[in-house]
Amino acid sequence: MHKVVLIGAGRIGRIHAKNAAFNPRIELAGVVDAIDASAQSLAAEYACPVLSLDQAMDDPSVAGVIIASSTDTHLDYSVRAAATGKAIFCEKPIDQDLARARSAANVLSKAKLLLAFNRRFDPNFQALKARLDSGAIGTLETLQITSNDPSPPPPSYVAVSGGLFKDMAIHDFDMARWLLGEEAVEVYAAGSCLVDPEIGKLGDVDTARTVLKTASGRICVISNSRRSGFGYDQRIEAYASAGMVRADNVTESTVQVWSENGAAADRFQNFFLDRYAEAYRREMDHFADMLDGADASVGYADGVNALALAEAAAESVKTGAPVRI
Amino acid sequence: MHKVVLIGAGRIGRIHAKNAAFNPRIELAGVVDAIDASAQSLAAEYACPVLSLDQAMDDPSVAGVIIASSTDTHLDYSVRAAATGKAIFCEKPIDQDLARARSAANVLSKAKLLLAFNRRFDPNFQALKARLDSGAIGTLETLQITSNDPSPPPPSYVAVSGGLFKDMAIHDFDMARWLLGEEAVEVYAAGSCLVDPEIGKLGDVDTARTVLKTASGRICVISNSRRSGFGYDQRIEAYASAGMVRADNVTESTVQVWSENGAAADRFQNFFLDRYAEAYRREMDHFADMLDGADASVGYADGVNALALAEAAAESVKTGAPVRI
Amino acid sequence: MHKVVLIGAGRIGRIHAKNAAFNPRIELAGVVDAIDASAQSLAAEYACPVLSLDQAMDDPSVAGVIIASSTDTHLDYSVRAAATGKAIFCEKPIDQDLARARSAANVLSKAKLLLAFNRRFDPNFQALKARLDSGAIGTLETLQITSNDPSPPPPSYVAVSGGLFKDMAIHDFDMARWLLGEEAVEVYAAGSCLVDPEIGKLGDVDTARTVLKTASGRICVISNSRRSGFGYDQRIEAYASAGMVRADNVTESTVQVWSENGAAADRFQNFFLDRYAEAYRREMDHFADMLDGADASVGYADGVNALALAEAAAESVKTGAPVRI
Amino acid sequence: MHKVVLIGAGRIGRIHAKNAAFNPRIELAGVVDAIDASAQSLAAEYACPVLSLDQAMDDPSVAGVIIASSTDTHLDYSVRAAATGKAIFCEKPIDQDLARARSAANVLSKAKLLLAFNRRFDPNFQALKARLDSGAIGTLETLQITSNDPSPPPPSYVAVSGGLFKDMAIHDFDMARWLLGEEAVEVYAAGSCLVDPEIGKLGDVDTARTVLKTASGRICVISNSRRSGFGYDQRIEAYASAGMVRADNVTESTVQVWSENGAAADRFQNFFLDRYAEAYRREMDHFADMLDGADASVGYADGVNALALAEAAAESVKTGAPVRI
Repeated sequence: MHKVVLIGAGRIGRIHAKNAAFNPRIELAGVVDAIDASAQSLAAEYACPVLSLDQAMDDPSVAGVIIASSTDTHLDYSVRAAATGKAIFCEKPIDQDLARARSAANVLSKAKLLLAFNRRFDPNFQALKARLDSGAIGTLETLQITSNDPSPPPPSYVAVSGGLFKDMAIHDFDMARWLLGEEAVEVYAAGSCLVDPEIGKLGDVDTARTVLKTASGRICVISNSRRSGFGYDQRIEAYASAGMVRADNVTESTVQVWSENGAAADRFQNFFLDRYAEAYRREMDHFADMLDGADASVGYADGVNALALAEAAAESVKTGAPVRI
Repeated sequence: MHKVVLIGAGRIGRIHAKNAAFNPRIELAGVVDAIDASAQSLAAEYACPVLSLDQAMDDPSVAGVIIASSTDTHLDYSVRAAATGKAIFCEKPIDQDLARARSAANVLSKAKLLLAFNRRFDPNFQALKARLDSGAIGTLETLQITSNDPSPPPPSYVAVSGGLFKDMAIHDFDMARWLLGEEAVEVYAAGSCLVDPEIGKLGDVDTARTVLKTASGRICVISNSRRSGFGYDQRIEAYASAGMVRADNVTESTVQVWSENGAAADRFQNFFLDRYAEAYRREMDHFADMLDGADASVGYADGVNALALAEAAAESVKTGAPVRI
Repeated sequence: MHKVVLIGAGRIGRIHAKNAAFNPRIELAGVVDAIDASAQSLAAEYACPVLSLDQAMDDPSVAGVIIASSTDTHLDYSVRAAATGKAIFCEKPIDQDLARARSAANVLSKAKLLLAFNRRFDPNFQALKARLDSGAIGTLETLQITSNDPSPPPPSYVAVSGGLFKDMAIHDFDMARWLLGEEAVEVYAAGSCLVDPEIGKLGDVDTARTVLKTASGRICVISNSRRSGFGYDQRIEAYASAGMVRADNVTESTVQVWSENGAAADRFQNFFLDRYAEAYRREMDHFADMLDGADASVGYADGVNALALAEAAAESVKTGAPVRI
Repeated sequence: MHKVVLIGAGRIGRIHAKNAAFNPRIELAGVVDAIDASAQSLAAEYACPVLSLDQAMDDPSVAGVIIASSTDTHLDYSVRAAATGKAIFCEKPIDQDLARARSAANVLSKAKLLLAFNRRFDPNFQALKARLDSGAIGTLETLQITSNDPSPPPPSYVAVSGGLFKDMAIHDFDMARWLLGEEAVEVYAAGSCLVDPEIGKLGDVDTARTVLKTASGRICVISNSRRSGFGYDQRIEAYASAGMVRADNVTESTVQVWSENGAAADRFQNFFLDRYAEAYRREMDHFADMLDGADASVGYADGVNALALAEAAAESVKTGAPVRI
């Protein structure tokens, strides 16, 4: 069992705490949080101590840290943990600022760092990737990534989120890179404020379409909205030379009702923690692999490159022109 | 072009008239109906004469007759047409009485007679049959035939219909025979009156489950109800040694709405003339094949055998015991 | 935390051990198994002691027992645990012999006993039940329960299984009773040996269709095969007065491939432990509810009544006639 | 019955001939084709005369013309027919050259001209439009139009086709305008040659993504490929403020096979004449409405505006920048 400390006892931190605690290869050895009550409550739940950040970082018996604190701490905590040789499980994004994120390259590009893009661990998207990799439908040509939240966050959240591209589409940029197998060389994005005018007042968009193009001519479209109106809408269509593979949304059950209105399937899952529960488990299991010696399957460079695409998309919306990467 | 006369200008007769008129190998050469106004109106539509039954039967230039008159005339008209050597397109059922139907065997088993079980010509059921015949999923073992009407007919219709098994399930008995490739040797049926108490008062059931068993042990279940509540519900599942093939219901369009209630497909088709429009066209085209010399793919013996199963099922409901065929 | 001991460390016992250990209200306090190595290995995994049956039964601090040992012990162990006032989680079936099962009525009908029909806890079947109970599609009329295993068990298993109806369809009889809301008064079953001739040599069938009829005329068909050819095939269609609700099979992922062969969805789940993983978790959570004071939602009488239907179905296959209950 | 003459007896002309001949309100009064054998053969099939263009245009008893001749004749023939007051059914596109198309505005904007964008008459897309118009899912925000052909045409066809945007995407530009209910003000397109290098050598692309933006901020993405690899791939997703409505592809039958590979639906329709057979019938029926006095639901201005979007998209691919309309 590898000792791991959780930094950040908020909503996502609690998910990681549970998955770490139930992982047979990980011992949840402590919880760190700036808000003491949060740390206490979570630590009590898993019968482990509350620690200060220094205690966690300085304890050589701690093999890994899970960084689930606020975004502005991700980079610093990662750098500090890297200096002690600990394995790092860092929530996305690596940072909101591309230049700052890049400034840590010397340290972090060599660190044992898992950048926690959870969708890479989703069984459905993994199954899609496996079909593509199998070659059964030929060579990938184009991607359609649909990624809509059920309903918009409050403007207070939007104000500090970094904007739609860094906050929400960052996942899709990572998925695009993962599936395209090739970096985008050009980014064009069209954005609108159609869902909530308050979001527009903050200088952000709530609806966007982003077109990525790679050197070999592959094209990817990312569709984002802060509000689907029907649930968590996360789908991918990948066209290849001999067909198409897609991963569809997840419904709450397999139940259908046939009535005079037609055939109605159950609701779509409405909450990312439900939709990605298994992804979070697999992600933590991959962190256990890393503690056992494996390399991270997604790391610092992926975080930086996705962030670069997010910045380019935001710039494209501002200028109205495509941006070369 | 083969000259064909339609006998019976009712609802189903009008369908056959249209398909005959638009078939490039058939000339609709006349309409016969006991109700003169019906005959006149349909004949006018297709610019052909109204004929008496004798005129139709006695005209040697008439190569075929379409018998779409009332059920109690099917057998007599078929026998008369057979005597003149005409090709016969006879609506189902061949008769409501098994003994009477059998009494015409001498004449009709040698006649060029198409017994118009329209479902055999449905593209979906034909595609299902083709998959089974291809051997791709191995040897057929069991069948589930679901056959529910959208809503019950008026009691006045039920009273003269011959009962659920002869009126409605007769189609399913034919489908079962067609797909099983083997005659049933035992029939058990459970029936209830759950939809409309008036139907029960007439001594009929409106809900039934019939189990057919063949000599080799294949089992078929037929599910019938006079009311589905959602449309025309005609489905088949065929289990074979290496998988299952099924034909599903038909929706009015491919449109789906995703809302907070889930994913709703369009309504199911609600009317057999819509659901089987293409089947009726193909059926008439097969009659043209027969006029060109081909054998009927479904004929007198099929009508008799389906009727025998219907009588057995009705008897099983009455006695509560399985019936040996 | 309620102390619970597991009796039986086989395949299904291991599932229950894990769910008990991870349930926040249950403490897995010991493992009992006739084979010491099995008990040792499972106990080590969850850091709890190996106990003798007497130790488990006689310890007043043990609030509940999970009986996952061989079928012939279910009844005796349940009776013994009931005598000490412990809550009982008993695997299905309650026994293979109806008369014997009934003989324990005095003790067990008053015991706090959960008869572990796992499908009642499946989220999909629960969602189906909820739709029916909501009244949104009217009053239930008929049921179609499809229940096919992926592939047949070895003849050695079949020989001691109690036969298809007691071993496999017992689940479906329970589902039928649960959903019909009314006892069956008549049972007819047709059975064949189509999958594996060895099963036939043992006097069993591997393919069956069972028709249940209730006093009010509701009809339920249960379709069973020891081999679907495509995975774990567990589906229900419930027709009610205003429509139909169904629970469908579960695929391994949401991935579809569109190629020149058509649209292919992922494989169906192939193993009951995968298909019902969540059901087993919810089942254990319901046991925790019982330890907190709640009544069992499914108990001894349900086990006996399902067994009575299984015996009736087996008799019907033998005699060829329907059996009155 | 309105007398109508067909000009152009090629593949699409034959479809229109059949639908005109079978339409109860239309009399197919003649066929015109530069290739006499084509005209003769089609005229014989429907028992109507072969006419010269002059005969057709100059005959005042001819109420309408169907222009299905080569693209470069569409505009001239329309102008000539308009001058005689005939109703015009003109195949798309109105012309390959936007300036030329616009030059006929004086005459054609007042003509009774149906520009035959067949997809507007497809029952599935009409059902989608009806759902949007019903307001049931709120206000339209974004559109995703997918439009891929089964396999690429020969380079010889591509060379004279006007390019992917004018030849293929022109339908999608029309659908976008029809559904958006608002003109696009900006067009960005990314194009690649991924399917057939010969197409690239001709200066064309075979794969494209086009982003349209309207004044109110609605965004539409059009996805095109000359080769889907699985059939005729024509789908639309329309996101509105309270959900999403989509029209899906059409399969050849409702048949599914469940095997160890999963659940496979039938192939998708592979040919536009099958997919849009009903659309062509409805289109002709709308022309009959026009002959009865109705206005065209889609006309000259629609043809010009779709062409303007196609030119803008082609320019955007060339310059790499969005184009203002």
